[in-house]
Amino acid sequence: MAAVPSTPLLKDELDIVIPTIRNLDFLEMWRPFFQPYHLIIVQDGDPSKIIRVPEGFDYELYNRNDINRILGPKASCISFKDSACRCFGYMVSKKKYIYTIDDDCFVAKDPSGKDINALEQHIKNLLSPSTPYFFNTLYDPYRDGADFVRGYPFSLREGAPTAVSHGLWLNIPDYDAPTQLVKPLERNSRYVDAVLTIPKGTLFPMCGMNLAFDRELIGPAMYFGLMGDGQPIGRYDDMWAGWCTKVITDHLGLGVKTGLPYIWHSKASNPFVNLKKEYNGIFWQEELIPFFQSVALPKEATTVQKCYLELAKQVAAKLGKVDCYFNKLADSMVTWIEAWDELNPPKGVVAAENDPAKSK
Amino acid sequence: MAAVPSTPLLKDELDIVIPTIRNLDFLEMWRPFFQPYHLIIVQDGDPSKIIRVPEGFDYELYNRNDINRILGPKASCISFKDSACRCFGYMVSKKKYIYTIDDDCFVAKDPSGKDINALEQHIKNLLSPSTPYFFNTLYDPYRDGADFVRGYPFSLREGAPTAVSHGLWLNIPDYDAPTQLVKPLERNSRYVDAVLTIPKGTLFPMCGMNLAFDRELIGPAMYFGLMGDGQPIGRYDDMWAGWCTKVITDHLGLGVKTGLPYIWHSKASNPFVNLKKEYNGIFWQEELIPFFQSVALPKEATTVQKCYLELAKQVAAKLGKVDCYFNKLADSMVTWIEAWDELNPPKGVVAAENDPAKSK
Repeated sequence: MAAVPSTPLLKDELDIVIPTIRNLDFLEMWRPFFQPYHLIIVQDGDPSKIIRVPEGFDYELYNRNDINRILGPKASCISFKDSACRCFGYMVSKKKYIYTIDDDCFVAKDPSGKDINALEQHIKNLLSPSTPYFFNTLYDPYRDGADFVRGYPFSLREGAPTAVSHGLWLNIPDYDAPTQLVKPLERNSRYVDAVLTIPKGTLFPMCGMNLAFDRELIGPAMYFGLMGDGQPIGRYDDMWAGWCTKVITDHLGLGVKTGLPYIWHSKASNPFVNLKKEYNGIFWQEELIPFFQSVALPKEATTVQKCYLELAKQVAAKLGKVDCYFNKLADSMVTWIEAWDELNPPKGVVAAENDPAKSK
Repeated sequence: MAAVPSTPLLKDELDIVIPTIRNLDFLEMWRPFFQPYHLIIVQDGDPSKIIRVPEGFDYELYNRNDINRILGPKASCISFKDSACRCFGYMVSKKKYIYTIDDDCFVAKDPSGKDINALEQHIKNLLSPSTPYFFNTLYDPYRDGADFVRGYPFSLREGAPTAVSHGLWLNIPDYDAPTQLVKPLERNSRYVDAVLTIPKGTLFPMCGMNLAFDRELIGPAMYFGLMGDGQPIGRYDDMWAGWCTKVITDHLGLGVKTGLPYIWHSKASNPFVNLKKEYNGIFWQEELIPFFQSVALPKEATTVQKCYLELAKQVAAKLGKVDCYFNKLADSMVTWIEAWDELNPPKGVVAAENDPAKSK
């Protein structure tokens, strides 16, 4: 039995968001780590299906009918038949932190054979600063037994607030369909004992499988786009969120970490199905990356919402010519922010919005 | 006994450069890995002292008298009483690759207890591409068992040629004097099983203790500056080289890797002595980093030499006002390039300059 901290970190300040189409038996394995926390389950697909949640977990569950009822016409911004729907959970949460995990992800073991408490590591990552302005060769300088090395400017050692903690996967690596097809048997067995900050100005492929973030710092940028049913693209939901998020964290002086913790990714999705979902993305991505690499946000964009609306404008102006899908996506980005602000009125407008007693 | 490859990689294309003031008994431990290679020993300090080299090693040794004889008045650009003198070895080498190591660095063991062949890992790092334009979350995608993850643009998967491989240290970490003073007992025991590319646009603290590079791609940028005897600064030699190198590799589309291999750094240098050497650097660094972060090299700078001379100009223009030392350093940077070109005439000027038979 793995050691569980006697008082779980951030117990009342973090929601676990799980998108699913099936019974959540995978939670049994996570019970020692997740049971103290509140779960937000976003049920994808047929809303009449009953999703079974193991006993003893504290949760709320939203299906498509709930999403439509809560958001009304704005529900159009939430994807259907795609795990991108998970971002609805970010929006209805009232907590400061979010951890999101896929239902095919199990507890991994560290090299000593001990169960990895992924959530605890994410929380540590989020609660310690990032170092986006200069690379530290011994990785996370705030970790026990590490520090800033010779030549690291002292003025930068306070770091920046951490907005995102991106965790990794043992066993099935997060490959695209072409790589899955070419390397069907490749498994990730390398445990890299490091957490590092993605430097300012550098983009990365953010995977939504095992991801934590500070909702107050960056929540409104974590829109997983329009994917799945009725859309010409899938499997780029988390990537889209990652590129938007990185550009905005860079602009606002926030940090993004990647590395530990690992989860055990149990099964590879079907590469043929994936190729069908991905193929437009594979082309479009070649235009998206230069776009995001050159995005400049104006000084006046001082909040995540303002940054995101500015980004939506630039998506329409510059990517609309790549495919008309991006005009629709840009509209949805605006709708997403409107819906976010409706469910999360600015502080002061509604008193005590962060009072946990009122959050359910 | 560690496994040694039957045909050592790049045996006739790599020199090992070692700066020293003492007998090189540390080579005994490296014998299985280094003996097939040629060593260039740069003797610092009193040239009348005899440095003992264990039997069986193929080496050439240069002391201060040799440096003065070979470079004449241009010898002024080579530091004295500081390990910065090692860069003279880079200049007299005629090989394509350089590995440089300090004489207090021993063979480290990997987590399985096996001796680490640091040189072999550096060569692997140098012979495989880098990925400076986009971050791969599973680290080096060219390594066995790894690849590019979903969302990594396909057009970037060829990578960029690798110019530098920066290795790390177990046991004594490379800390500055203030950190040494505050944490006298800290040891690095974390073996991080990763090699990664420092992204384009990101600076890092390059340590010269365990460093390999492609001399043909980046050699002339590997000037370790003016340190030690008669200079107001020490212990920033490798840092200076690293910042210059990173700016130039970024400009020329080359890559810089950091991570594996580890060496065992045996003893901490005296923090009081170090503080005396470093204190000017600690202040100046705060101006140097913004300078290097904003350096722009012109399109016409298409060779390392041209880039470096342009950088020297900007150092004089922008850092001269921080301290007059930087004017002297800028002059030395020019002298260094003149000396480099004298010892390494451009291809075509002297026929077959890379013929190993003529390299000694």
